[in-house]
Amino acid sequence: MINYKNINPRLIEAQYAVRGKIVLRAQELEEKGKKIIYCNIGNPQALKQKPLTYIRQVLSLLEYPELMNKPETEKIFPKDLIKKAKYILEKNPTGTGAYTQSAGISFIRQAIADFIQKRDGIPADKDKIILTDGASKGVQSVLTLLLNNENDGVMIPIPQYPLYSATLSLYGGKQIGYYLDEENSWQLNEKSLIESIEKAKKEGINPVAIAVINPGNPTGAVLSYDNIKMIINFAKKYNLSLLADEVYQENVYLKGIKFNSFAKAMNEMEEKDTSLFSFHSVSKGYLGECGHRGGYFEARNIPDDVFEQIIKLQSIGLCSNVDGQIVTYLMVAQPQPGDESYDLFIKEKDGILNELKAKSTILGTELNKIEGMSTEVPQGAMYAYVKFELPHKKGVDTNTMSEEERLKYEAKRDSEYCMALLEETGICVVPGSGFGQMPGTLHFRTTILPPRNEIEALARLIKDFHLNYVKILKEKYS
Amino acid sequence: MINYKNINPRLIEAQYAVRGKIVLRAQELEEKGKKIIYCNIGNPQALKQKPLTYIRQVLSLLEYPELMNKPETEKIFPKDLIKKAKYILEKNPTGTGAYTQSAGISFIRQAIADFIQKRDGIPADKDKIILTDGASKGVQSVLTLLLNNENDGVMIPIPQYPLYSATLSLYGGKQIGYYLDEENSWQLNEKSLIESIEKAKKEGINPVAIAVINPGNPTGAVLSYDNIKMIINFAKKYNLSLLADEVYQENVYLKGIKFNSFAKAMNEMEEKDTSLFSFHSVSKGYLGECGHRGGYFEARNIPDDVFEQIIKLQSIGLCSNVDGQIVTYLMVAQPQPGDESYDLFIKEKDGILNELKAKSTILGTELNKIEGMSTEVPQGAMYAYVKFELPHKKGVDTNTMSEEERLKYEAKRDSEYCMALLEETGICVVPGSGFGQMPGTLHFRTTILPPRNEIEALARLIKDFHLNYVKILKEKYS
Repeated sequence: MINYKNINPRLIEAQYAVRGKIVLRAQELEEKGKKIIYCNIGNPQALKQKPLTYIRQVLSLLEYPELMNKPETEKIFPKDLIKKAKYILEKNPTGTGAYTQSAGISFIRQAIADFIQKRDGIPADKDKIILTDGASKGVQSVLTLLLNNENDGVMIPIPQYPLYSATLSLYGGKQIGYYLDEENSWQLNEKSLIESIEKAKKEGINPVAIAVINPGNPTGAVLSYDNIKMIINFAKKYNLSLLADEVYQENVYLKGIKFNSFAKAMNEMEEKDTSLFSFHSVSKGYLGECGHRGGYFEARNIPDDVFEQIIKLQSIGLCSNVDGQIVTYLMVAQPQPGDESYDLFIKEKDGILNELKAKSTILGTELNKIEGMSTEVPQGAMYAYVKFELPHKKGVDTNTMSEEERLKYEAKRDSEYCMALLEETGICVVPGSGFGQMPGTLHFRTTILPPRNEIEALARLIKDFHLNYVKILKEKYS
Repeated sequence: MINYKNINPRLIEAQYAVRGKIVLRAQELEEKGKKIIYCNIGNPQALKQKPLTYIRQVLSLLEYPELMNKPETEKIFPKDLIKKAKYILEKNPTGTGAYTQSAGISFIRQAIADFIQKRDGIPADKDKIILTDGASKGVQSVLTLLLNNENDGVMIPIPQYPLYSATLSLYGGKQIGYYLDEENSWQLNEKSLIESIEKAKKEGINPVAIAVINPGNPTGAVLSYDNIKMIINFAKKYNLSLLADEVYQENVYLKGIKFNSFAKAMNEMEEKDTSLFSFHSVSKGYLGECGHRGGYFEARNIPDDVFEQIIKLQSIGLCSNVDGQIVTYLMVAQPQPGDESYDLFIKEKDGILNELKAKSTILGTELNKIEGMSTEVPQGAMYAYVKFELPHKKGVDTNTMSEEERLKYEAKRDSEYCMALLEETGICVVPGSGFGQMPGTLHFRTTILPPRNEIEALARLIKDFHLNYVKILKEKYS
């Protein structure tokens, strides 16, 4: 029989905190009847966000195309969507039940290219786009392509979304962490990038790529256009491929702040030497269609023979799921003014974005009022990365610890804190050690997704818990 | 910029013939207006097989749940299916748009356990079942778990479905090929298993698992119950995990032939030491729902701490797509006698299975009549693996070649043959070298999926092509 000792050690090593121990405990408590507020994962529809009606109506028609021939259908579905469903079926006559081309359905890739062109005012090529089962699978495909041997490393932010660290552990690549600048709204810092890559090279690591998440997860930061250009120059200088995780591109809340894509900046800089992979998803934005596992990535500055290898990789899994491909199509080909479905679409879209904006402001502001707690009011994405302070035991000084000791000590502290928060309040957040944090700091990540009328109560629960937790620790350590 | 020389060499090495060069050429020809008959891939709905109505009706309701509240709906959908959709929504209130548990929705795993229990008369545990985006992704997860280092090997059949060889190349495991016995209806042969594992061990390879495809792909063979027990004993003796690829379990055509699962045999043998992973899918059988990417695997004789690692692996990709999970549920929880949807379901199911049976018999029989060509009439699955003979150039003797030379020579011969077949007739099949074959033999794999009224014409086209191809070669070589 197989046993723990003879299975893949890389798998054992891989950590994915977003669905880790605290979440499993939350599920246990929930089964016992406790009310759990899941703030651990960006899963909007699990927290009562309604799907956009037009997306579901088109899917409903395509799953059962005979509906389009029934006289009752016109009473239930807007005319433009019946037309749209017919168009999709005409372009993809094998429907939702057949494997597609490995890269995804051709006309959908064209629609994505048109979307990029319109969004950024730059040319885009459908034959450099691949549809994937969500962005995670796309990132994993690109890392499969890029990692040549155990010595290759990928630069990932600290804090980062643990997909990156887990996948690198799993594939046997090296993590080269670079700190995001919490003092400067979590932007990237050139000095810090150079320090971390030079240190890795001295250790014999071969850096092959840099991953950037914009808007940031878990930070909620939106990178400035200048920051993006700095990163592109940095990647060029060190001959790194760029992985631009742009799944939160529609989630930008703060006035005056704008999402800019890496593709746009690269085009403006006329950069032709740096390979770029840009990821997008139907799971975030105002769609929140996580369960449909749809998304795509676009490659730029990639030789054809390399791109063929990515296609081959996709073909081994046959293709991404067709409904996910269709939701991706609907994300980039939305109802237009004059369409029967347009008004409802705009109402729902604005409603969701306004809710998210309001919730991020309320949550950020309220948490900031708590003594010993601070956070950026999220500029974008769906998270607040909250810094909190806890008293130390007398004589404990993290500065005198080895890095390993310190990481272990801090992971214990933030994990115990988050577990206690769960047990006492039912609020499920993820400890900062799951994402990474500056030495000497502690964080947790919370989503901004709970319903608006529960957000203030949520902040109060966190406040009461925190003050009490600190008080007890102080007493214990005094 | 990345280039072909510095990307992952394992990816370059991986081959997946089912979507290889010949298929790409077929797509090219099709775009130029040539009629292509795609016999390269088991993609039934791409070859006009209709989906089961009940599956699509339930999906249609679940994608747009408001449908269930419209008065028109009862005129369009059977009552039992509206009820079923409501039940699914009640059990999974977050619907199709939210991430699920990493292993898949709990009540669906229970329904699968019930299905196994009913099919085999054995107990089954929902907490040892994982829902996946099709069976391929499940196989890849299990191989990720099992491969400990570059020296670990997995026994795979020759011929095999290239998912296995491609994934082993990609993950850096060793292939340990074992020949299926073409003279004995492609059953496994104990002597041949022992020979191949002993040879591998002598070469310093550490065998960790054996993959068995039943019913067979590309062979169409259904393994006898005795053969299955022999394999379990063999796996036990060598301490191998068993991967039972049972995606064609509903596709059994020959009278007196019955599918038996490895789980059933293992239970009867009271085997508790050998780890078993059994794979199933919604893509095959009579559903043919390839595009929905649904499936599951069930594990037996697996320690809990190992199973937790598989759950963690699934969690890194979050979960499989929800529609695929629902189709899997509908596969194992079908309409029952007395339900409004029952009669149509049975009619459609029987229609599809009878068609497949008739087509496999016609195609097998007709191809067998061709001089220099022979095949088993498929007992199951969706393919015929057809042996054919070609004249050799004077003085060429494959017996005097090194294995590498011979493989190259034979791959050139069967690939050129299949490419010529495509160019002349539009029929797209996959050369035997993509699956593996006995030294000195040539094969191609064709699906049995084209519409019934086209099958005889297809066999005629192959016959005319083959006789002419042989004639030209003979003239050339004389």
